[in-house]
Amino acid sequence: MKKVKIALLGLGNVGCGVWKILNSNKEEIQKRSGYEIEVAKILVRETKKDRGVIVPEEILTTDFNEILNDKDIKIVIEVMGGIEPAREYMLKAMDKKKHIVTANKMLLATGGDEIFEKADSMGVMFHYEASVAGGIPIINGINESLTANKVEQLYGIVNGTTNYILSKMETEGLSFKAALDEATEKGYAEADPISDIEGFDAQYKLAILSSLAFGTKIDVENVYREGITNIKSIDMDYAKEFKMVIKLLAIVKDVNGKLELRVHPTMIPKNHPLANVYDSFNAIFIKGNAVGDLMFYGRGAGDLPTGSAVVSDLISILRSNIDLENINPVVKNNLWDKKIRDIRSVESKYYIRTTVEDKPGVLGEITTILGDCGISLRSVIQRGVESPQHDKVTLVLVTHYTKEAKVIEAIDEIYELKTVKKIDNIIRIEDFKN
Amino acid sequence: MKKVKIALLGLGNVGCGVWKILNSNKEEIQKRSGYEIEVAKILVRETKKDRGVIVPEEILTTDFNEILNDKDIKIVIEVMGGIEPAREYMLKAMDKKKHIVTANKMLLATGGDEIFEKADSMGVMFHYEASVAGGIPIINGINESLTANKVEQLYGIVNGTTNYILSKMETEGLSFKAALDEATEKGYAEADPISDIEGFDAQYKLAILSSLAFGTKIDVENVYREGITNIKSIDMDYAKEFKMVIKLLAIVKDVNGKLELRVHPTMIPKNHPLANVYDSFNAIFIKGNAVGDLMFYGRGAGDLPTGSAVVSDLISILRSNIDLENINPVVKNNLWDKKIRDIRSVESKYYIRTTVEDKPGVLGEITTILGDCGISLRSVIQRGVESPQHDKVTLVLVTHYTKEAKVIEAIDEIYELKTVKKIDNIIRIEDFKN
Repeated sequence: MKKVKIALLGLGNVGCGVWKILNSNKEEIQKRSGYEIEVAKILVRETKKDRGVIVPEEILTTDFNEILNDKDIKIVIEVMGGIEPAREYMLKAMDKKKHIVTANKMLLATGGDEIFEKADSMGVMFHYEASVAGGIPIINGINESLTANKVEQLYGIVNGTTNYILSKMETEGLSFKAALDEATEKGYAEADPISDIEGFDAQYKLAILSSLAFGTKIDVENVYREGITNIKSIDMDYAKEFKMVIKLLAIVKDVNGKLELRVHPTMIPKNHPLANVYDSFNAIFIKGNAVGDLMFYGRGAGDLPTGSAVVSDLISILRSNIDLENINPVVKNNLWDKKIRDIRSVESKYYIRTTVEDKPGVLGEITTILGDCGISLRSVIQRGVESPQHDKVTLVLVTHYTKEAKVIEAIDEIYELKTVKKIDNIIRIEDFKN
Repeated sequence: MKKVKIALLGLGNVGCGVWKILNSNKEEIQKRSGYEIEVAKILVRETKKDRGVIVPEEILTTDFNEILNDKDIKIVIEVMGGIEPAREYMLKAMDKKKHIVTANKMLLATGGDEIFEKADSMGVMFHYEASVAGGIPIINGINESLTANKVEQLYGIVNGTTNYILSKMETEGLSFKAALDEATEKGYAEADPISDIEGFDAQYKLAILSSLAFGTKIDVENVYREGITNIKSIDMDYAKEFKMVIKLLAIVKDVNGKLELRVHPTMIPKNHPLANVYDSFNAIFIKGNAVGDLMFYGRGAGDLPTGSAVVSDLISILRSNIDLENINPVVKNNLWDKKIRDIRSVESKYYIRTTVEDKPGVLGEITTILGDCGISLRSVIQRGVESPQHDKVTLVLVTHYTKEAKVIEAIDEIYELKTVKKIDNIIRIEDFKN
């Protein structure tokens, strides 16, 4: 049996998952890779910390140079996260012809070009399956299995925390706050949940997936982003009435050669496969011009699922010939130069929830404005709301397909009406037909 | 741009799909593979037939030797199906160092060893993503992305025809016959639907998937098989009452190192992701010991989805170095030698529908037999049936987990009872907890 030495950078949640898998599934990994794998070094900040896994103390180091300068270490697994020093370490390791596996979405979404170019110029293999959607093989799926397609649309539930919160709101009627508290308690949400609930995490992941699916460079700033903090139980109730559910979707569509990139809460039909993705599960739904509809579903986070993706990348590298250069080159993200469409150009259906005075003629005023802006309505629901004077009602409007710019224009005018107290929420509706 | 010549064996449904994709997605395929691909020859039985695609007549041939002896043809795509002459042609082509892409499930399920060994000994690449579940990248998923896992269980809806029929029965209340007629009319079922409705097609596919997932040789004869022809509307109704649906599942489980391989109609909970796979869609649900639950969903048949899998295999080969030997070796199916468990050893819950005389004491007789066999009941439903004398009732029994051997024993005894007119149906229930 051939032997190979590898190193881990980081021994947090994912690092411990990798360590556990390398030990518990040793026989499988050896037989499938053809190698006996030795973790020669693990870079940590503190060697004495209790991490809940048994790791021989002599392989822990706080000095990256011990890894960098060890010629026998052929593959470096970066699971420390964050931009620096992960970026510096990966670039230096590639300079020494070490192959790389990483789980670092933030670095790839913001500084991926430099990393990919380095891998390309050094002829080393660079794998990053674990950077998006944990254990779901979506990177490999796009990179290897959808290559015969023009990808037309991709819709992802790529953040487990927000999907858990929305699932609890939908199925148990919890408020956003109560659902978030439960997610925090169960360890699904971090102490500072902003990156999840405001959609930043999904934004990074969409940038990586889109860049890969469309072979083009995507600046993460070009991904429109809205979080889920404004979703109320009443929106869930209305969604149910329309036979829909609300999910935080990461969406990219190729519209006549231009890309539309957006992360926002979305109402989708209850009978769509994505609507049945509950709790902290992730799923990515893709339409390709040859393959048709395709969906990948699974665990988007957690030590073992993410570790599964990291170790499968490691095995892929070992199955190629690690001593040859350029054997498994990085897929280029500059095959095409796609333009980005502004969010104002998006065409969608819209759910608009407003609070208005309970007077005759209010609906007429609003529909006149919508009509003048060229927006046609699919349905209107009016209901009394709890207020001391019983003088307000909730008015929910659902539009047909219309351009977002028109909605913005109409909403500005509607908000000027004296009879309109509040525009409570606007949620885009996706019926997967456009 | 590098150039490569390839040949197609067959120009039926899948062959035409491959041809269409190579033309319509030419730019994507060139950029992603790095090659300009020329289809130099296509082997057909008749050169004059109208196939609905425009193919230059000069590349059509009825003589395989024109392909075999053309040194410039580096890759052969076998999409003719069936055992012979596909087997002979592939073996000969590999002898000439040609790489192979195939969509041939029947050959792989029954004579795969010889083919894999030839590829291995000649050092050529051999890809077969299209052989199972059309456009769904399940072969690559298992082969590349789940390698860090011990696969524990796999559940597949791998036959679109039967899933279409069961969907129509469930959602529109059609009889089996009416649903089959509709499937035939829509082109989902073949003129002779036996291979689909009796589960043979799913049996082949399960043999291929299991062999890959468990790295072991699987004789297709070891896969227990039941079709869906005995499923009645009334079974669908009872399933609904239990918040379940009926699907034809291909199941493999590793139970203490032995494999349980079976294809049969299965009641599964309505809230399971597989329960929401409708119409002719396919899905494969896998439990790995690291990745947890994972599902792949998509089109299991059709010219373009299957063609998508074939062409992505072609691109994979081109991305490796086609002039080097052993660059992307065939994954071995003899890494482990797993024993097969007999169907009688299976542990499951069971739905048993019987017709009995409407007399006091009948239920007591039956439950006594079940109790004596060590089978405990979860629920019993008794209802009158339409009969001239109103003297018969339907008795539905649902058991807790029990060994199949016990059920067989109990049913034999129950059938001996004078008061029992008929054992109408027995359907295994899968709650994904065992």
